Amino acid sequence: MPAEFPDVQAVMDWEREARTGLCEAVFAEGKTVACLAGILENAAAQSRRLLVTRLSTEVFGRLPAASRDALDYDEVSRTAILGPAPHAPDAHVAVVSAGMSDAPVAREVGRTLQFAGVGARQIADVGVAGLWRLMARLEEIREHRVVVAVAGMEGALFSVLAGLVSAPVIAVPTSVGYGVGSGGHLAFHSALGSCAPGVVAVNIDNGFGGAQAALRILNLLRPRDAA
Amino acid sequence: MPAEFPDVQAVMDWEREARTGLCEAVFAEGKTVACLAGILENAAAQSRRLLVTRLSTEVFGRLPAASRDALDYDEVSRTAILGPAPHAPDAHVAVVSAGMSDAPVAREVGRTLQFAGVGARQIADVGVAGLWRLMARLEEIREHRVVVAVAGMEGALFSVLAGLVSAPVIAVPTSVGYGVGSGGHLAFHSALGSCAPGVVAVNIDNGFGGAQAALRILNLLRPRDAA
Amino acid sequence: MPAEFPDVQAVMDWEREARTGLCEAVFAEGKTVACLAGILENAAAQSRRLLVTRLSTEVFGRLPAASRDALDYDEVSRTAILGPAPHAPDAHVAVVSAGMSDAPVAREVGRTLQFAGVGARQIADVGVAGLWRLMARLEEIREHRVVVAVAGMEGALFSVLAGLVSAPVIAVPTSVGYGVGSGGHLAFHSALGSCAPGVVAVNIDNGFGGAQAALRILNLLRPRDAA
Amino acid sequence: MPAEFPDVQAVMDWEREARTGLCEAVFAEGKTVACLAGILENAAAQSRRLLVTRLSTEVFGRLPAASRDALDYDEVSRTAILGPAPHAPDAHVAVVSAGMSDAPVAREVGRTLQFAGVGARQIADVGVAGLWRLMARLEEIREHRVVVAVAGMEGALFSVLAGLVSAPVIAVPTSVGYGVGSGGHLAFHSALGSCAPGVVAVNIDNGFGGAQAALRILNLLRPRDAA
Amino acid sequence: MPAEFPDVQAVMDWEREARTGLCEAVFAEGKTVACLAGILENAAAQSRRLLVTRLSTEVFGRLPAASRDALDYDEVSRTAILGPAPHAPDAHVAVVSAGMSDAPVAREVGRTLQFAGVGARQIADVGVAGLWRLMARLEEIREHRVVVAVAGMEGALFSVLAGLVSAPVIAVPTSVGYGVGSGGHLAFHSALGSCAPGVVAVNIDNGFGGAQAALRILNLLRPRDAA
Amino acid sequence: MPAEFPDVQAVMDWEREARTGLCEAVFAEGKTVACLAGILENAAAQSRRLLVTRLSTEVFGRLPAASRDALDYDEVSRTAILGPAPHAPDAHVAVVSAGMSDAPVAREVGRTLQFAGVGARQIADVGVAGLWRLMARLEEIREHRVVVAVAGMEGALFSVLAGLVSAPVIAVPTSVGYGVGSGGHLAFHSALGSCAPGVVAVNIDNGFGGAQAALRILNLLRPRDAA
Amino acid sequence: MPAEFPDVQAVMDWEREARTGLCEAVFAEGKTVACLAGILENAAAQSRRLLVTRLSTEVFGRLPAASRDALDYDEVSRTAILGPAPHAPDAHVAVVSAGMSDAPVAREVGRTLQFAGVGARQIADVGVAGLWRLMARLEEIREHRVVVAVAGMEGALFSVLAGLVSAPVIAVPTSVGYGVGSGGHLAFHSALGSCAPGVVAVNIDNGFGGAQAALRILNLLRPRDAA
Amino acid sequence: MPAEFPDVQAVMDWEREARTGLCEAVFAEGKTVACLAGILENAAAQSRRLLVTRLSTEVFGRLPAASRDALDYDEVSRTAILGPAPHAPDAHVAVVSAGMSDAPVAREVGRTLQFAGVGARQIADVGVAGLWRLMARLEEIREHRVVVAVAGMEGALFSVLAGLVSAPVIAVPTSVGYGVGSGGHLAFHSALGSCAPGVVAVNIDNGFGGAQAALRILNLLRPRDAA
Repeated sequence: MPAEFPDVQAVMDWEREARTGLCEAVFAEGKTVACLAGILENAAAQSRRLLVTRLSTEVFGRLPAASRDALDYDEVSRTAILGPAPHAPDAHVAVVSAGMSDAPVAREVGRTLQFAGVGARQIADVGVAGLWRLMARLEEIREHRVVVAVAGMEGALFSVLAGLVSAPVIAVPTSVGYGVGSGGHLAFHSALGSCAPGVVAVNIDNGFGGAQAALRILNLLRPRDAA
Repeated sequence: MPAEFPDVQAVMDWEREARTGLCEAVFAEGKTVACLAGILENAAAQSRRLLVTRLSTEVFGRLPAASRDALDYDEVSRTAILGPAPHAPDAHVAVVSAGMSDAPVAREVGRTLQFAGVGARQIADVGVAGLWRLMARLEEIREHRVVVAVAGMEGALFSVLAGLVSAPVIAVPTSVGYGVGSGGHLAFHSALGSCAPGVVAVNIDNGFGGAQAALRILNLLRPRDAA
Repeated sequence: MPAEFPDVQAVMDWEREARTGLCEAVFAEGKTVACLAGILENAAAQSRRLLVTRLSTEVFGRLPAASRDALDYDEVSRTAILGPAPHAPDAHVAVVSAGMSDAPVAREVGRTLQFAGVGARQIADVGVAGLWRLMARLEEIREHRVVVAVAGMEGALFSVLAGLVSAPVIAVPTSVGYGVGSGGHLAFHSALGSCAPGVVAVNIDNGFGGAQAALRILNLLRPRDAA
Repeated sequence: MPAEFPDVQAVMDWEREARTGLCEAVFAEGKTVACLAGILENAAAQSRRLLVTRLSTEVFGRLPAASRDALDYDEVSRTAILGPAPHAPDAHVAVVSAGMSDAPVAREVGRTLQFAGVGARQIADVGVAGLWRLMARLEEIREHRVVVAVAGMEGALFSVLAGLVSAPVIAVPTSVGYGVGSGGHLAFHSALGSCAPGVVAVNIDNGFGGAQAALRILNLLRPRDAA
Repeated sequence: MPAEFPDVQAVMDWEREARTGLCEAVFAEGKTVACLAGILENAAAQSRRLLVTRLSTEVFGRLPAASRDALDYDEVSRTAILGPAPHAPDAHVAVVSAGMSDAPVAREVGRTLQFAGVGARQIADVGVAGLWRLMARLEEIREHRVVVAVAGMEGALFSVLAGLVSAPVIAVPTSVGYGVGSGGHLAFHSALGSCAPGVVAVNIDNGFGGAQAALRILNLLRPRDAA
Repeated sequence: MPAEFPDVQAVMDWEREARTGLCEAVFAEGKTVACLAGILENAAAQSRRLLVTRLSTEVFGRLPAASRDALDYDEVSRTAILGPAPHAPDAHVAVVSAGMSDAPVAREVGRTLQFAGVGARQIADVGVAGLWRLMARLEEIREHRVVVAVAGMEGALFSVLAGLVSAPVIAVPTSVGYGVGSGGHLAFHSALGSCAPGVVAVNIDNGFGGAQAALRILNLLRPRDAA
Repeated sequence: MPAEFPDVQAVMDWEREARTGLCEAVFAEGKTVACLAGILENAAAQSRRLLVTRLSTEVFGRLPAASRDALDYDEVSRTAILGPAPHAPDAHVAVVSAGMSDAPVAREVGRTLQFAGVGARQIADVGVAGLWRLMARLEEIREHRVVVAVAGMEGALFSVLAGLVSAPVIAVPTSVGYGVGSGGHLAFHSALGSCAPGVVAVNIDNGFGGAQAALRILNLLRPRDAA
Repeated sequence: MPAEFPDVQAVMDWEREARTGLCEAVFAEGKTVACLAGILENAAAQSRRLLVTRLSTEVFGRLPAASRDALDYDEVSRTAILGPAPHAPDAHVAVVSAGMSDAPVAREVGRTLQFAGVGARQIADVGVAGLWRLMARLEEIREHRVVVAVAGMEGALFSVLAGLVSAPVIAVPTSVGYGVGSGGHLAFHSALGSCAPGVVAVNIDNGFGGAQAALRILNLLRPRDAA
């Protein structure tokens, strides 16, 4: 390799957490195994905690054994956590998802919150095609400070839910769907074009981002100097 | 004008009704006042009934007085009916609409059905952002044979409604909305990408088409030889 | 796995059929083999009938032998039926398809109807590029109560057919096509922008949904208390 | 005005006709009245023939009286012809249009051909929603060397027609339609995604271009040295 | 008007505020002057407070004098407030906008918050093309609990701002821009595709929605029983 | 398989050639090997000629040996010809292509013409980025009756070429390109939005269709009764 | 107006020119007459030079007489210059445009350069449909350091030109066109998907931006310390 | 193969460099191994230098050993250089990239410049989500004559950077991103819709084109006769 092209090397921004109150994370998709292994070794050597998202089973399996052993890996959400998870006594966030196929994204929300020491309750399979399922769990949902709603297809859950609760509702559209609903753009637009006021959204399949938004909100509940 | 260009003249297809059981109608948008006046005079001379859709107040006002007097014109739905309306004793169709701005399209559905001698009940302002409004009228909706649902914005009404009734649900998306919901494409895609099975849709703002679809279905309920 | 993430487990909604008159089905695409196997075992243990759609040959082959043996699997439509099929004496539905490549979707319509005990006649390869093929079978098509039209590419079949029959016409656009017709969006828009009044459509490749819409209509023909 | 910005002045390319066998024309839309008047005066001074397209009634009315008097103006097609029209004994081109609203574009095709001395027959209002209308005139259409098909909405006419005739079929999609069919993109894509082989298309509402394409073809029928 | 079409009449949902903690508002765009006048008279008769959004100067001018006198109308944001505004002692929300043309939307955010009794500070003209302007006011922005960012064009402000503050950042994309940035879709997608984690967005030009989202968050800071 | 689902079987339309003057062809993409083998055997048994398009090397290799031996297969264009090729003495068509990657589509044009007994000359690698290459072969191109232009990326070749020749120009856009040019939509739109009058286009990568359009035109040059 | 909403007031960034070497300009579209008048008065009071773009004749006419008199206004490009224009001895930039309708944008390029003291030569009406027009002026174009190419419709000029000159080519796509070419997106994508290497583009109709890009390049030719 | 289809053979345009000052390069994507091998052998036989772009590791591995040995291959940028690299003493170009995943494109820029004998400095991982990283290297960036900015996702880097430097800024959007940012269209539009004046862009992932644009600019700095 010519001298003017130094090795591609990730420079983790360990100071970010201090500055913004949000934890550092690595988006694994599109990174080589070597690059990921380097990041993990570097973090381990510095005894730092780290969240890895979009880490497929296949790539996880190709990491060095030492890295694999050090990680708490969850296949469904494709997330891995390096280092100890803080104790998260109460669930402040309700993660409400529409269908079984939305589970990976809903769980990415939960794992990101877990990494940040925030408890979350998964309320799954309450899509609006069978409205009674959502109604049956409404009181339980209302007990939480923040609601993260996860849905694909036509995303009708976002409007219905936002009309029923007064808490902040963060919509995480998923790429579940086909035909006119393929790629998640329909759910995504539904979240933003919602007839229920005050729904906000993050990018398609961005469970990590939905959790980060929840964390920004929950930060407000801490004593002011911590915000 | 050169001889090879004869006058543009509408040739109404008066036999269509006999063939398909669906009534003849004129889509006024994009036609000149002279063209519309000609059609109306021709129909009146033949004592034929006629439904005119998308007839703006402004164009209606510019029609000859004789035509205006012969028409039953409704400003909200921009429809005009020429000739006697048949008696429509019972309401077989529930026209369920989400918001006040959907009224023109919902009423176009009703007027088209009225022209065909079919009764319809307007159930308005039951958008899902305030779910209780829909729930309060659910039993009433269920009494009808066919449900025509009219909604713009994110169109969540279609999914919710189809999950609650077993009758045919015909979605008529409207162009009500702005930003990501402008033009009606969001409501339209939501109807088709619905998580509730068996929802069908017609074109955006196509109240006439929604009514025609309902008529095709209701035809089945007549004695077989009439279908 | 952390305690707050219970196993992803499908909770079939066995009561849906009672409520809406529509049968329960499982959309296999995007579900893991383990998840599907669990659903099938659970249904078998409860002696319930079940329709599985979008079940690829590859996934079917990886199901437990017991599940495979219990299923009536059709490779072309990628559907599987668990439990006895009801007797379907007469064909009420004509499934009219444009080209050979539309066969999988047309057959998904037929299999879904079969599962619900409704007979259907497949009228294939009658695309409008060779109009005489459609004309030759027109009388046969007209004998049915409901027409489900299945077409990809530019979807001209929908308009032509709806102009020729008075029955309800449910358009099922397919993803057959390439270039400007790729993904099925062209056929899909053609169905909705049709110049023939009263055509309704479901999502692209949604043979199951087209059948469900037909069933909602046919329900109306039963004695009223069954609707 | 600073010296480096000379007056915007149209330099007509009078030699184009000699080179390509296609006549010079002026697209009026977006040009100022002054600019158009200048072009017309210049052409009149040189005794040149000229076709003006997309000339609205409003702009035509604001042209100098001398220019207006010199023009053969047709309001429907918004075309004006300067200079004598050549004799066009036989109709080689069938201009087949779907609905009344397609008349302006169909007539732009005819006027452009007329300017070039080519006869055309207008066969209007034969959209496929009422197939018998097209069938009734099929033999007449087949008598022409080239077929120009003009249709908006879902453009099903293009596929049906191309399956019925062996002549070249040039599709001119129009912007007639609304909702999913608005702007003409649906008709346009249908022309290209047609299931009938050998259909070709020009831009939306481009009646002039459709005629030019027909002229390129008809040029082939002249003695070879003229091509 | 036929008897089955009752007058279109808005049924305000005065109980919504009690249920969701969010105030009732009227979206004026697309409603007739008569409809709006009726709503205002009804609200005045019941001594209710009301926020009207998207009320153009032209429509405001056509309201009855009594209605106009009762309203606190702001031309820039096109909002009107009926009834007394609550005292809003401290500014909890920073409304940060990129350019002068974003002012109407930014002010709609502020007016909606004002109506709800929440103070807001407008920090305008800090687009990233001149980064020093944003940097100069960063400390001031950080003093607020919630940040509402308002930007059109390429929406780079959202990413930059979210990387600099730890508070919740609600992006309100505006339709300011032209060419590739016309309609606000570019700013809108930038907000969601942001490289800075935890940015959330509402619909294009939806200042009201951005404020409602902020109110949902600020509700959390009240004593728990009020949420 | 249930009795109501007969085997999917292609019914070749051998009479089409007689009716439209266009040959029968099979689009192999999306058809199973068994289906294709059946068609080929059936055609061979009836001693019919047949053109197969979009036949990948992989699928060709899986056909029965007897079918493979009977076919004249061309790997680059993915076309196969069954039966004798007619003698094609003169080249009436110039197939002009822009880059090396357009070769497969350009050759599909040529092979389709060859199957119909029409000679074609391939003029490759004359994209406009190096205009001198096109200029150097312009006289050669002008010797042909019809020009089929094949180009991907931004498709500038279509406009330039149509400005230089008076013959019919049929644009075949290809899916060669990436980023803004991916999928062929850019080349496709360029062909239709061309500033040179009279360019016509077929679908993306549709070399077969481009050739069929040329054949429709060349049919006109035969003695009239053959058209 | 409530106290917390100060008057919307433009704060011109007079220091920008010093920092970036690019002059300050005001985009008039979407700003009120009052706002523009304020900016102009403020600039005049400080004896500052100012370029106003997108200033329509109608808005210009409504400015105070004093402002109008102080401005050098050009109707075609909709630009106004306040203050003295620097001497621009040589033309370093060739502004090459395709059609007459591209003149306003081409002239905006020229006026922006003029304001910056850079000479430009307008080479108009050299679209590629008549290639000889471009060829006839190629040597003249090659004499300039930078080429700004202005074209709408299919934008083929960009590729052809970039293949013929070695200077930097800045493409300014215009919104000239209709149908598939409407809005300028086709020309815009053509510029970027060009087969000629090294073409760069700015936003649609952004003549100001094209000139600014040219100025950034020409800055490099000044003695280094000025860059 | 029939005689009329000569072998597809690349005719390299070795004279291009002389004409335009830009080097010849081969875009490997979509070319067969045999085609590439032929080009390389031909170039080697003529002792010509050659740049190959988009050459995947997999295709590189399948080239003949002699070709592989003759190439300087870089896996990250997927580029190969045949022949000696000229000496490039000083870095005139700053290649500024936003994230680790943009490295392949950033390096393609660098390798193309290296092939042309122009030095470049890679300034990586300075995305705006952590603005301090960009600020820390701003002075270093300002030392270069031309800035090539490489970013995916929402592409906010382009606007921020162009507001901070006066040099030409060439934006190379990358396809890094997902959901609303997938495919690179968001970054691409952000570059063009930028609020900072004078940003220009090339196609998505087009590092080669970005470098060619820089070379066109740097050519201006050579003594005039070399341009």
